[in-house]
Amino acid sequence: MTDQVEVVIIGAGTAGLSALREVRRQTDDFLLINARDWGTTCAARGCMPSKALIEAANAFHRRHDFAAFGLTGADSVGVDIPSVLARVRTLRDGFVKGPEAVPGKLGSRALSGRARLLGPNRVAVEAREITARRIVLAPGSRPVVPKDWAQFGDRILTTDTLFEQTDLPGRIAVVGMGAIGVEMAQALSRLGLEVAGFDAVETLAGLTDPEVTQALRTALEREFPLYLGAPAELSQSGSGVTVTSEAGHFAADAVLAAMGRRPNIDDIGLDTLGVELDDKGAPPVDPTTLQIADLPVWLAGDANGHLAILHEAADEGHIAGRNATADATQAYCRRTELVIVFAAPQVARIGARFVELDPGGTAIGRADFSRQARARIAERAEGLMQIYGDAATGKLMGAEMCAPAAEHMAHLLALAMQHGLSVHDMLAMPFYHPVLEEGLRSALRDLARKVRGGGRFDLSDCPAVGFDALD
Amino acid sequence: MTDQVEVVIIGAGTAGLSALREVRRQTDDFLLINARDWGTTCAARGCMPSKALIEAANAFHRRHDFAAFGLTGADSVGVDIPSVLARVRTLRDGFVKGPEAVPGKLGSRALSGRARLLGPNRVAVEAREITARRIVLAPGSRPVVPKDWAQFGDRILTTDTLFEQTDLPGRIAVVGMGAIGVEMAQALSRLGLEVAGFDAVETLAGLTDPEVTQALRTALEREFPLYLGAPAELSQSGSGVTVTSEAGHFAADAVLAAMGRRPNIDDIGLDTLGVELDDKGAPPVDPTTLQIADLPVWLAGDANGHLAILHEAADEGHIAGRNATADATQAYCRRTELVIVFAAPQVARIGARFVELDPGGTAIGRADFSRQARARIAERAEGLMQIYGDAATGKLMGAEMCAPAAEHMAHLLALAMQHGLSVHDMLAMPFYHPVLEEGLRSALRDLARKVRGGGRFDLSDCPAVGFDALD
Repeated sequence: MTDQVEVVIIGAGTAGLSALREVRRQTDDFLLINARDWGTTCAARGCMPSKALIEAANAFHRRHDFAAFGLTGADSVGVDIPSVLARVRTLRDGFVKGPEAVPGKLGSRALSGRARLLGPNRVAVEAREITARRIVLAPGSRPVVPKDWAQFGDRILTTDTLFEQTDLPGRIAVVGMGAIGVEMAQALSRLGLEVAGFDAVETLAGLTDPEVTQALRTALEREFPLYLGAPAELSQSGSGVTVTSEAGHFAADAVLAAMGRRPNIDDIGLDTLGVELDDKGAPPVDPTTLQIADLPVWLAGDANGHLAILHEAADEGHIAGRNATADATQAYCRRTELVIVFAAPQVARIGARFVELDPGGTAIGRADFSRQARARIAERAEGLMQIYGDAATGKLMGAEMCAPAAEHMAHLLALAMQHGLSVHDMLAMPFYHPVLEEGLRSALRDLARKVRGGGRFDLSDCPAVGFDALD
Repeated sequence: MTDQVEVVIIGAGTAGLSALREVRRQTDDFLLINARDWGTTCAARGCMPSKALIEAANAFHRRHDFAAFGLTGADSVGVDIPSVLARVRTLRDGFVKGPEAVPGKLGSRALSGRARLLGPNRVAVEAREITARRIVLAPGSRPVVPKDWAQFGDRILTTDTLFEQTDLPGRIAVVGMGAIGVEMAQALSRLGLEVAGFDAVETLAGLTDPEVTQALRTALEREFPLYLGAPAELSQSGSGVTVTSEAGHFAADAVLAAMGRRPNIDDIGLDTLGVELDDKGAPPVDPTTLQIADLPVWLAGDANGHLAILHEAADEGHIAGRNATADATQAYCRRTELVIVFAAPQVARIGARFVELDPGGTAIGRADFSRQARARIAERAEGLMQIYGDAATGKLMGAEMCAPAAEHMAHLLALAMQHGLSVHDMLAMPFYHPVLEEGLRSALRDLARKVRGGGRFDLSDCPAVGFDALD
């Protein structure tokens, strides 16, 4: 390795590793620089450990349905929090093995250290300077924690530290009810902890549809209190922390900060690029190319403030890596937007958000899952789905929902929207019985009736007769 | 009501009620005749009570994962079989309310009694004769039980009687390992009964792909023994029944006959129609019109021996009802074939079956779910998915699988096949992380590599780096 390389990639998270794949197709003359552990946010501190915690929490919570099913002994089921957390880490350790092996495989083409731009073609790593023809920036993000919370020391948790705990105290406040906050608050509550959720705004889990938000709120509030719509203040109380807002207060042993993630762009030398930075310090990035202005520099993944979601970060890494090794910059179509929150009921957004739609030109199909047949059989009947379509053509535009198995129905809608299908197109597919997708079909039929021209014949689009299988 | 009507519908099951809807759009001059209870096979004895039993069984079975999750008390969880069965009936009673209300709503246009054709325009119901311009036959089906099993009396169960039991004996043999046999055998086993499954052939749950069948067999045999490939004989042994085949034997307290369903066409006077009947006594029926030959008679639902599946029966009822009230017979495109078996792992078939494909022109994409990341997190990692595509174009032709959440992934593939998508089209959609659909994506990528021209760029179609989220 010389101090002059074709491509430097800064950051070995999901975006950086995806960029690496593309770069390696074209050249071996690259350097991958990584500041923290070689584990990716997703595998080490994000998607994977959180889902492992949620699965254990849901398995424990299921005992509340035992009596309904005809099962006995629910009261004897217990949870061993240290074991739950140990399992989370065991799984996590497996998932990080892949990215952790990267520096070993790359040898001198991988470098551990904090990188800083010195200009569009120069990078410093500690005392060393590297000249690169092209640079891919994928420095990732970190949890937002208000500065004055430092006084509460290790009573403040983030997703960086939560999964490292060997045990958990009995009372945890979760501040921030976005995707991560809702997931973790519910999981901790279901694991038997006393939990309260706070947020300065009244939205939940990133939903923008007020009816779906209300349905989710009703479901969550059956499990733990939510104090929304007013900023939360922390204060010391004995060995704990009291969280107070105009909506309510909660005496906690620890506080999980879930107020979003901040791009790691404040200390990487973006000011040396000669482009204007916005009020958050972010440079102009084209989401279809990931290029910063017309520089030989690309910014991919969480760090560009687009969607901090694994599959988007992976796509962005690929786009940046391709463009960083191409003769000409190419624009790529981004996929249909898809966001899933692994709460119960699960939350999903697909395509356009409710707030982005033109109310005059949009028809909304609705399905209530509180009476859905399969959901009732499974003791999971709750939630609401709203599907948005073009009122004139029936083209599917977006959907927001909280419903059982929303993660799966979201993929079905995403495929339909990716290919520009209409509500009528989608109703032509088979819906098995009894499945939750029949609830989705109810929303589609409701939408089809509201679209200009009304519901067409899809072989079974007919008025209700009170028989779930046919309705 | 006169003894002369425009349309007679025989059978008030799913197909008959769907036909009724269409008929009522056109005329009030109809008569609905039903021989048995007004409950539909699906709601009273099929889809719904079976799924209720399965959900309870799966909830109980989940205790085996408690230790892995960090939960305690699994040994204290018990099952109260009478309560489980009572819940099944309570749910069932709710689901049959809709169809049961039909005769009350129709008044004299509904008739309880056994109908028999006297010719293409005449029907007898007991002593009464009715002349009809058009006739829709939807007489349904019943479980197959070998005649000589009558000697074992009430130790022989079928899905007609299983859900009526107030308790269950400790040992049940299930003879027939098709969809219903596999579902019920596993559910009974998971409810703590000693179960053995028998079948004269080596196929399972209607699968035709030998590798998927083997994966399902391996999974099922972890829970109860399967004796396949040889016919089962029953013999009395004390108060029980011993089931014996060349593959093995089992001393049972009761035997569930799950050898399929026989169309109820043997005693409805099809011989009076003047058309040739096949060796099973079935008349020629066009699946796109449901018409019998060129007669003013339509045969819909289980009774025509096509697919005994609710959504197909509903479609067939609609088609028959439309045609029975139309000036000219119209052919309808049938939906993409979709069959789901609610075992664990779930079984699904979509589109063309493995055995129907031209091996030379077909590429197969494969995904093993035993290492799939999300499945491992959920302690549900097992199963195999095979997706069949046109080797030249990549057009999706069919799929067979046994996998967690196969019911959902099957709908995704059904939508894709309904719209003639290729493997490349489907790879353009977003796949969230971590989801089971990433396993489906693995099968799609495997397929894409095998299709002429190899894998195209879908923004993330790259060689493995050992990191689940990116692979």
